[in-house]
Amino acid sequence: MKGNQIIRSYKREFSFSYAPGAYAVMELLLASPQLARAVYVHSKHIGDGTVEALCARHNIPCIHDDRSFLRINQKENTYLFAVFDKSPAKPDRNRPHVVLVNPSDMGNLGTIIRAVAGCGIGDLVVVEPAADAFAPKTVRASMGAIFRVRCAQYRSFEAYLSEYGEHAVFSFMLDAEMPLRFDNCPVCERFALVFGNEAHGLGEEFRRIGRAMSIPQSPEIDSYNIAVAVGIGAHIFAVKNGLLV
Amino acid sequence: MKGNQIIRSYKREFSFSYAPGAYAVMELLLASPQLARAVYVHSKHIGDGTVEALCARHNIPCIHDDRSFLRINQKENTYLFAVFDKSPAKPDRNRPHVVLVNPSDMGNLGTIIRAVAGCGIGDLVVVEPAADAFAPKTVRASMGAIFRVRCAQYRSFEAYLSEYGEHAVFSFMLDAEMPLRFDNCPVCERFALVFGNEAHGLGEEFRRIGRAMSIPQSPEIDSYNIAVAVGIGAHIFAVKNGLLV
Repeated sequence: MKGNQIIRSYKREFSFSYAPGAYAVMELLLASPQLARAVYVHSKHIGDGTVEALCARHNIPCIHDDRSFLRINQKENTYLFAVFDKSPAKPDRNRPHVVLVNPSDMGNLGTIIRAVAGCGIGDLVVVEPAADAFAPKTVRASMGAIFRVRCAQYRSFEAYLSEYGEHAVFSFMLDAEMPLRFDNCPVCERFALVFGNEAHGLGEEFRRIGRAMSIPQSPEIDSYNIAVAVGIGAHIFAVKNGLLV
Repeated sequence: MKGNQIIRSYKREFSFSYAPGAYAVMELLLASPQLARAVYVHSKHIGDGTVEALCARHNIPCIHDDRSFLRINQKENTYLFAVFDKSPAKPDRNRPHVVLVNPSDMGNLGTIIRAVAGCGIGDLVVVEPAADAFAPKTVRASMGAIFRVRCAQYRSFEAYLSEYGEHAVFSFMLDAEMPLRFDNCPVCERFALVFGNEAHGLGEEFRRIGRAMSIPQSPEIDSYNIAVAVGIGAHIFAVKNGLLV
């Protein structure tokens, strides 16, 4: 069958990945149809024909085959998935970035991608080692927002910085002296908001690399969940800098 | 052995629950030691003696028994857990509340509890049917913040409202006319921030019950993850109303 292939368990080294679930498939077909290799539909899928129509319009094979779901449905059941080409992209030089240094959890990473897109920020940088931004679990957690952002991977923060030195860097650190509030939030043409790993945060060197800021929090917690922290920080910057009305 | 008991798989109808992992156990022992029935330590646990010392101080049995972990370690491995009495509590009449109507996911609920505590809001109301706020998975996702908030469960929003009619109600709805920003954020002595279910949001009736507000977002997403939305909304209210500096 045209476009058909044996569906294997996802591996990071693949040049393609799987978008599981209706949300992720729809976002792929609406935002980045050129990346879609094929869409698989289970006999238990209840749809209104939109997926099939979009596939037809973009000449994407739409395959009805329940057996293809065996490797996809490891934990959560889904009756729709797409095979798509991974698409690492260079960040836009003239737009703000969110930079994640060594994020380790795919669920958090997907939720962050969704939050970043929601704040009107279209460029995400992931510094390795890091969770896989294109893994099916990340794609699912992003609710397909991965297809709405440019996502670049860098070996080190220095490698990123050497290409984007004109961005004003803000390092989010728990013990930074400057608490980020709406009234003191910087306004600048190009900025990079940098967040660290779930367990370790950012290293001390980020105090020199960028302007260190903290997100106000009560003494009741050690820290916010990383996706909540990115959401609050990026949202304040986005509103203050006119990315969101 | 004193305090020992057969550890069964958690069930919602139990009057007790389990706090898995070092973070949750420490928060229990620091914030609510009177709720702790026993702490279990695995032979693979690497600690500095703090847990044992806190147990001794509060006369809590500290049990070294690897077999007790069999029912606890279903998915993620942990080498420390506590048995604690569930403690539903009435919201404080004079403090702000966050109200979650029918939250369905324990991971989201735990992350929300952590965010609410982080915003200096000590009172959480969960309207049923809802995910179990005291389930081990929720406790773990909260990083133990469940022991820092008063958490009440209500059968309906009306039942809650009939007791707390003096709170100004703000309903977070995607299509509300009023976008919440720092500059237009209401200042009031007692407020209740109400958020709906992950998939369905709040019902239409909440437009009449409270003042409907939305969290500014780009057209790139349908909605933020619920925990990110609560984080952004509660943080704006908390800073504006002086709960956070």
